[in-house]
Parts: sequence; structure tokens; C-alpha cells
Amino acid sequence: MKKVAIIGVGHTKFGRLQDKGLMDLLSDASLKAIEDSNTSDKDFDSVYVGAMSPAAFNNISGIASALVDRISLLPAAADHIKNGPASGGSAIKAGFQAIASGMSDLVLVVGGEKMTHITTPGFVTSNVATLTHPEAEKKHGVSLPAFAGLLTRTYLEKYNAKLEWISDIAIKNHKNGALNPNAHFQRTLEDFMRSASEKGKGNWDNIHEFLRDDDRNPIIADPLRLFHVCPISDGAAALVLCNAEKAKQYSDTPILISGVGQATETHIVFEREDLTTLKALKIASNKAYKMAKKTPEDIDVAELHDAFEILEAVQSEDIGFFAKGEGAKAAHEGLTEIGGKIPINPSGGLKARGHPLGATGVAQVVELVWQLRGEAGKRQVNGAKTGITCNFGGFGNNIISILVEKM
Amino acid sequence: MKKVAIIGVGHTKFGRLQDKGLMDLLSDASLKAIEDSNTSDKDFDSVYVGAMSPAAFNNISGIASALVDRISLLPAAADHIKNGPASGGSAIKAGFQAIASGMSDLVLVVGGEKMTHITTPGFVTSNVATLTHPEAEKKHGVSLPAFAGLLTRTYLEKYNAKLEWISDIAIKNHKNGALNPNAHFQRTLEDFMRSASEKGKGNWDNIHEFLRDDDRNPIIADPLRLFHVCPISDGAAALVLCNAEKAKQYSDTPILISGVGQATETHIVFEREDLTTLKALKIASNKAYKMAKKTPEDIDVAELHDAFEILEAVQSEDIGFFAKGEGAKAAHEGLTEIGGKIPINPSGGLKARGHPLGATGVAQVVELVWQLRGEAGKRQVNGAKTGITCNFGGFGNNIISILVEKM
Repeated sequence: MKKVAIIGVGHTKFGRLQDKGLMDLLSDASLKAIEDSNTSDKDFDSVYVGAMSPAAFNNISGIASALVDRISLLPAAADHIKNGPASGGSAIKAGFQAIASGMSDLVLVVGGEKMTHITTPGFVTSNVATLTHPEAEKKHGVSLPAFAGLLTRTYLEKYNAKLEWISDIAIKNHKNGALNPNAHFQRTLEDFMRSASEKGKGNWDNIHEFLRDDDRNPIIADPLRLFHVCPISDGAAALVLCNAEKAKQYSDTPILISGVGQATETHIVFEREDLTTLKALKIASNKAYKMAKKTPEDIDVAELHDAFEILEAVQSEDIGFFAKGEGAKAAHEGLTEIGGKIPINPSGGLKARGHPLGATGVAQVVELVWQLRGEAGKRQVNGAKTGITCNFGGFGNNIISILVEKM
Repeated sequence: MKKVAIIGVGHTKFGRLQDKGLMDLLSDASLKAIEDSNTSDKDFDSVYVGAMSPAAFNNISGIASALVDRISLLPAAADHIKNGPASGGSAIKAGFQAIASGMSDLVLVVGGEKMTHITTPGFVTSNVATLTHPEAEKKHGVSLPAFAGLLTRTYLEKYNAKLEWISDIAIKNHKNGALNPNAHFQRTLEDFMRSASEKGKGNWDNIHEFLRDDDRNPIIADPLRLFHVCPISDGAAALVLCNAEKAKQYSDTPILISGVGQATETHIVFEREDLTTLKALKIASNKAYKMAKKTPEDIDVAELHDAFEILEAVQSEDIGFFAKGEGAKAAHEGLTEIGGKIPINPSGGLKARGHPLGATGVAQVVELVWQLRGEAGKRQVNGAKTGITCNFGGFGNNIISILVEKM
């Protein structure tokens, strides 16, 4: 198997980007990555685009071949990879295999989604709910936030954890996001609190009191409130992958993709052995660790899929950083902050960087590349050499984990 | 690069399958392929599903992971590959790369679509039209049949060809489809003519006179009439792929995928150098030939993408069987019939086998496997050892060509 290196990364601002269409975002991120990789004059063999719902959200299909034409990479092979909110991770895996097989030497991977222009109430949540089981779940009105609420309540009871610890994850991720110029939200939750206070909308003694305010932080899916849940965002992120033997021709700081794992779990959430364990993540991350010959102790920084803040806690356990039931407490104790035992989501995560569905899995790896190159600015994890991701599809029935390290 | 073999194939009946949903069709084809491959008790590493529009047509996403659960292949990695009507071919390529890279040893590839339940007039054509360029094409009302009509008229004028020769392709494909128990239509066009005549709906001296009848064969996109155009169909087809070194453990007649090529062309049809040349097919098939160390002269049987009958003529030229402008005439002269110089679409092609979008690219390869195994029954091409496909995405802006041969 040929080794695969990342030689270029690109990332648009995430947020409410009213002047950009999906193809603009995919193009912008791609061109940034190509520029960063010093391959502007080279022929790309193939292009993989991860996006969940461009047909529903943007009334366009065939986006991969359209992108190849738009950014002048004709006649590169082009495919669109769909795996719900894990479409970005799946696109990276497809690009990885294209190079690992020897079929390609130079591959562009880009993930993106354009969602904030949709004004029909419930349209996005309803579209994402097509990931649930049509008969056992969807037709009864279950949505992904509902599952996250259920998971939160179960976790809190089972492990004697506190909702404030879950809030602490949001507080941390907003703090990190405030250091990330590409993040959707660049204010801490304390900033939000101060701003609300200045507008005379309340008076709070501390951030947790603010986060219990029904007006300022309304319940989304009990017990989860607005600030426990990621936003809907626009954005795109891209990687240039290269046969690692040739990587040094283009980059002084190539980053190796040394582990890739992916696994599925029962579609129907009710059928799982344990609601609070993400079996697919355990299997996927174990595959990635085994392939890279690493263990969780080797990891310096991680980007996890906190579409709901409970997920970061659970994932931090199932990816091997903390014992079962200890993830939320570890976050509360600061172990996952930048400078902590194992920094998680220095980018701000889905909570603060934002969550343009198909972009997320790629953006996670872009952040790790910046961290491993030492280019993460104010949110730099000192001396980071190895990182891992969890990109979460469906309600955890399809998970991809990617392990990267310095070459 | 590890060699990749096909050790099992599955194919549902194509047609108007009113009792089946998309997941039923994908499951049925998959289970048939697994049974055919003698791997029922084995662990699959990964599953690739090709489908164009399950969210729009069937209100479901995450179909790959859902399928893995449904047919008990958990925790196999699962991805959904989208490339318009070439989604099946792209899924095969993804599965090929999974094995060629060494990441997987046993892979299921399945393509399918469920479309005939849609009753909103124009919904399917409009959905497929999302493949055209949104600004330069779609917003002016262009559809894929419109492009096919334009291509037909240009071809007929440029090469001094006759519309009857294009009709001859439909006549041949319906003749072949009548020999294929899985085909959507199992009647020849002469059968349709006799049936109409018996019902007192007309009186014709020959098939071409029947095909000029405005009532029996109305114009769809001038000069193309109903019988120049493929139907909307339901169906699925599947392959079990295996590391070729291990193929003989499972199958006495493994078939090698020895060439895979894919290429893109300008999104906007107007920008192409020549409307009547499919540049992406030339590049894709040349890649496949080169990889397999074969030439067009080595090919015994081909499955081409006759969504519109003009496409079979043009593809038969650009894939290297006939000189430019000679494809339609060659069909008229019988060179592409079973028993002819180069049999094309012995399955009946998209015209008669039907065209459940994501299924088509996989069904093409299933047909070639049956031909190379000598299991094609009444439509067997004698002594076939090597076959090639053209799976056509967008209006030819993304084409995949797969070359298979006996091991």
C-alpha cells in the first residue's frame, strides 16, 4: 500500500455566507488548498467531493464533475461521496484509497455545504432526519436533536454526571472558536452573556446561570439547550493528497495520513447494545490506531464531532482518551482544553467553528494539519505531532476516524 | 496494486416494481450477489452503494450504512457514491480502489434506484436536469432529452446519417432485451407493432413505418421519439469484489477487472470542442485499455450507455470500435448485433433492460460477467473473453469505462 501525505489545505470562513453559493465555497476551499500545496501547474488525477444534500439544499447534482470544470482540473476523475454528516471523512478515505492503490498520485478532496439560505422552518432538520430509520424512527417524528437529548439524559443518569459538565464542553469550544479566524462564532459564551447583559436582557452571576436562562438559552431537546447544539453553517474545506514518496517535492511539512478506519452500527438506535457507547467509533478508531501502529496515549490533539456537546464527551471515551462515563467530567476538569492532557477541538469544534455538514470531516483534518505544522496561531497545541478525528454519520451508525502524524 | 476479481453478481428484475422500495431492491441484488459468490459466512470489509437521488425519490439518506445493517454486514465500512447516472460505475471504481489499495479484501458494490412510483409529472426529468449547468443551461429549461435531440440532429447532418439507423439501435436492443429475463421490456419492437395492429390502432408495412407513427411513437425531443429514449425503471444490481489472489477460493470462474478509467469534460455542453465527440469517454476508455494492456480490437462484447439511442452510436465510435461518424451505420448494418463484429448491449441496454439510474453501471458489468462466464443464455456472445463498458454521467461530462476479462 502506498503511503499518503497531505501537502495542502484550504478552508473558507464558516458561517452565514450570504454572498456565496455551494460551488463558490467548494471552489474557494479547493483553490486555497491547491495554492498551499504548490501544485497549481500539475495535473490532478482525481477529485472527491463530500457533501450531504446539495440536491435538496442547492438544487444541483453532479457537483464533483462541475467543480473539476470550474477550477480547471479537467479531465480529472470526479466523484461525489455521500455519508450524511460524515461525507467529508468518507471523501478523504476515498481519496486516500485512490493514492494508496496507485491509481492516483495527486488527489483533491473537498467537503462543503451551503445551508443558511434555507428559510423554510424545519427543512434542514427534516432533511437530516432522513438519516434515521424510515419505519422505526422517522415516521414517529424522531430527529437527530431528539436522539441527542435522549443520549444526554441517559448519560447523566447512568454515570452520575452533571449537565453543567456538558455545558463546559460548549464553553471550551466557544473559547477555542474565538481564537479561530475561520470559525462561525468568534465570541466566547462569556462574551454572549456580557452582550445580553449590556442590552438589558438579564443579569447573571456566572456563565452557568446564564446557560440555565430559558430566554437566552432555550431548550432544544430536553435537557439540551441552544448552546449545547451546533449551528447550521455554510463553508468548505479541502485537502491536497499526494503519494508520500513525492510529497517532499511540494511541501516542507507534509503530514502523513497513517491511519484510516470506518465502521457501521445498527441503523435503529434502539437496537444498540448500549446507547451511551458508540460502537462504530470504537471499531473505526481501533482500525486507525492499528494501521498507524499508535495508541490513544500517542495522540496529542483530536478533532471530535460535537454536533451536540454530549457527543464530544462520549466520543472522547470511545476513542480511548477516557474511561467510560469519565468524558464529561474530564472536560469539566479542563483536561480537554488547549494545554490540557488531551486537547479536543482546538478549532472550536462543530459548536463554534460551525457545521456545514459535508465540510466538517475535512475541516477536522485541516485543523490537525495546521496543528501539526505549528500553524494554528493562538490556538496552537504545543509540540503536537499526532492527531486523530471522529467524523460521525447518521446518529452514529457510520463513523470514520482518521489519524495523521508528522512525517 | 493488488488485482481485483468479481466473484459474485446479483441483478433484480428491472421494470415497474410496485411492491419494492429502494432498500428492498438494494438488499435483493446484494443478497443474490453474496449467494453467487459463496461468501455468505464471510466478513465484508466495505460496501459501496451507487444511487443518484434516493433523498429526492425515496426520502431516505445514509443508504449505504442502512443497507449494511439490513443485510447483516455490520460493522463493514459503508459509503454512498453519487455520480448521476454513472453512480454505479463510480461505486465499482471505489470498490476497486478499496481492494487494489489493500485496505479491503472483500467488498460489496451495489447500484440501484426506485423511480416509477413518482407520479408528479416532470419530477424525474427535472431532478435529472439538476446535472446540467444551473446558469448556462438549467435555468433556460434545457433537459437531458433536449441535449440528446440536439446531438442527434447534429450527428445526422454532420455524418450524413439517417434517423432510421438510430432506430435500428433501438430495434436491436429491444430484440436483445426480449432474450433477457431481467429486462424491463421483454418484447421486440415488432411485437409492439403487432400488438398495436391487433388492437386496431394502425396498420404498418414495416417496423420503420411504425416508428414514424406520431400516435404510436410520439416525438420526445425532435427528432427523437419515444422508442429512441430509455424508460424510467426500478431495479438494482450488485457485484462481490475480491482480492484476485483469493478469488479462486470462492469461484471457479472469477472475472478480472483489468482496466478502470474515468474522466471529466466541460460542464457546459456548448463549451465542448465537438458536440458529437465524447471526449471524456475517449480519455476514460483509453485509460482502461492502457491499464489492461488491451485495444478495442481485443474486445468481444460491450455494454454502452444508450439512455438515448444516439449515445450508443457515438459511444461505439469514441470507445474505439468504429471510425467517427460510422457508429450508426455500423448498427444499421448489423455489426453490433449478437453474432456481429462487436456485439453491443446484448442485455438490451438502457433502452430495453431499463435504466434505474444508479443501477445501470453495475448492471452493465453484471451482464459482462454473465457473458464471460458463458451464462448469458439465449443472448450469449459466443466465446466472449473480454468486455468493456461506458457508464455516462451528466450529459457526458463524467464518464467511466470498466474493462473485464476472464482470469
